[in-house]
Amino acid sequence: MTTTVTAYAAPAAKAPLERTTIPRRAVGEHDVLIEIKYAGICHSDIHQARDEWGGAAFPMVPGHEIAGIVAEVGSGVTKYAVGDRVGVGCMVDSCRECDNCRAGEEQYCTDGGMVGTYNATGRDGEPTYGGYSTHIVVDEAYVLGIPDGIELDAAAPLLCAGITVYSPLRHWNAGPGKKVAVVGMGGLGHMAVKIAHAMGAEVTVLSQSLRKKDDGLKLGADHFHATSDPATFLELAGSFDLIVNTVSANLDVDAFLGLLNLDGAMVNVGAPENPSSFNVFSLLAMRRTLAGSMIGGIRQTQEMLDFCAQHGLGAEIELIDADQINEAYERVLASDVRYRFVIDIASLRD
Amino acid sequence: MTTTVTAYAAPAAKAPLERTTIPRRAVGEHDVLIEIKYAGICHSDIHQARDEWGGAAFPMVPGHEIAGIVAEVGSGVTKYAVGDRVGVGCMVDSCRECDNCRAGEEQYCTDGGMVGTYNATGRDGEPTYGGYSTHIVVDEAYVLGIPDGIELDAAAPLLCAGITVYSPLRHWNAGPGKKVAVVGMGGLGHMAVKIAHAMGAEVTVLSQSLRKKDDGLKLGADHFHATSDPATFLELAGSFDLIVNTVSANLDVDAFLGLLNLDGAMVNVGAPENPSSFNVFSLLAMRRTLAGSMIGGIRQTQEMLDFCAQHGLGAEIELIDADQINEAYERVLASDVRYRFVIDIASLRD
Repeated sequence: MTTTVTAYAAPAAKAPLERTTIPRRAVGEHDVLIEIKYAGICHSDIHQARDEWGGAAFPMVPGHEIAGIVAEVGSGVTKYAVGDRVGVGCMVDSCRECDNCRAGEEQYCTDGGMVGTYNATGRDGEPTYGGYSTHIVVDEAYVLGIPDGIELDAAAPLLCAGITVYSPLRHWNAGPGKKVAVVGMGGLGHMAVKIAHAMGAEVTVLSQSLRKKDDGLKLGADHFHATSDPATFLELAGSFDLIVNTVSANLDVDAFLGLLNLDGAMVNVGAPENPSSFNVFSLLAMRRTLAGSMIGGIRQTQEMLDFCAQHGLGAEIELIDADQINEAYERVLASDVRYRFVIDIASLRD
Repeated sequence: MTTTVTAYAAPAAKAPLERTTIPRRAVGEHDVLIEIKYAGICHSDIHQARDEWGGAAFPMVPGHEIAGIVAEVGSGVTKYAVGDRVGVGCMVDSCRECDNCRAGEEQYCTDGGMVGTYNATGRDGEPTYGGYSTHIVVDEAYVLGIPDGIELDAAAPLLCAGITVYSPLRHWNAGPGKKVAVVGMGGLGHMAVKIAHAMGAEVTVLSQSLRKKDDGLKLGADHFHATSDPATFLELAGSFDLIVNTVSANLDVDAFLGLLNLDGAMVNVGAPENPSSFNVFSLLAMRRTLAGSMIGGIRQTQEMLDFCAQHGLGAEIELIDADQINEAYERVLASDVRYRFVIDIASLRD
């Protein structure tokens, strides 16, 4: 039997979000009912709530950076028990049978694709609703354990911002002896700095201005340069093994490729709405690669959470009440957040 | 003391090539004097002879696919002796001291760059002249040995076309169990088919039309598809581990990226004059990479020649006399060659 829970939803594209109620499915055999404590606000929540990527379904309850406590488990659940600290990220299901799912890369599921935590249709045909709500029901296979070492509020953004940068840093072997540049120091970028530093890499932040320099160095960056200064591109030419680009706006791709050393890779984790342009010579010059990476699989997301706990890493957050969501969206668009808004879901229960 | 040798040169940008004479330096301590027997015609010879990439110096003697016989060696030469079968590719020198040179990746030399076999300035300050000539003097460190198993005329194109495709096939691990697509079946593409097949990969040719299908299958391709047929992109979506793109014209990059499987790479070995456009979503979707690769180092070029000899591979060639060079250029531009023109340098000695 479905239950009705309180949520914050966009009733239509571009309309302000407002308090409402939504149904949650009955707890099935393999399901976990989570009492949500915190939900991060990701820029992609805004893109989708405003239907900027197309295909949006309303009412929409955004939120895919979810941290909470297990309140109930189905009869077949083995991984979690009531009271456990858990999280949910960008996906709540996938086919589980294709090569990619079996390889633990569920985000690249080839049989229908992963089921998004919100603004998607579940395999039961019902719409999915995200984390801006008091409770969520998720199959245990897509629920992550949050280790005791991380506060739940600082953990929430790890479920998207954290894994989105952890995965390419691991895949492209960030570590001791490697020079890693992080482009943009927002929600994703600030986690990339912390994680790359913890992995042992030499970390450089490439930010539009030097405004966040003190923060960057404090979070673990070894160097900090402004991309608005043309001297940056001359001084750092050919110096990086890996560039993690967290900026979703169109960049001068050739200029950034020129910063890579032999066999260096520039990995995009955000995507601009419009096509990007590049000169193939920029790739030929040092056998460079331009790549993309999308969140990470369930197994790797757990690995990331464990890594963050081990190294004492969480997101830098600004905690808000649910009725500040619309204002927070405007501030995200103005890059006025250090470095992630997290909704205190207690404010939804009032 | 310099000697004067016969050559075929472009006197100015876009002027027809003509018979002339050029100087060759005296044979130094580490030099090898090569009596050139065959020189391949590469599309880049035409680009440079017509100054389409800028910075061309005239008179220009193109030619960087050189096969011949050692005629004289300097007192310090240890690798070669008079009578040896040898080749010269795209470079005749580099700094030898930067990280890349020391790693055997001289083509990516960071201290002044590699010295091109022609249309470049040697470290002695003199212009370099290429293979459309009767003799060339090259430091032994940049001379390759051509194994007995390959005819000299079929070996010449391996020095550029061969290594340009061998290097990325090796770097991106073409081999048993890997699905490799070759885009374009010209001078480079036909060698990519042969080499990828010999490496044990499952090879698909993606050509504009099915015109060369019989040839492709004969050279070792398992499948052959026309890119002019939109069904090709539907049928083959997500199926390749590696795409080697030998086409220098601007392609629909997103359409080709869509053919890659998880972690697949599309490697460009040619470069269009104009920028290319792509959508970052195409890279995010399957953690795909878009890369470039430029010829190969000296050590790997020797490895490639040995591999080709071991597998009985040489280029498919059409042998011409020097006075047919201008006509051959027109035919290359019209894609009317199967699959590489090679100049019989004996015709320059008449």
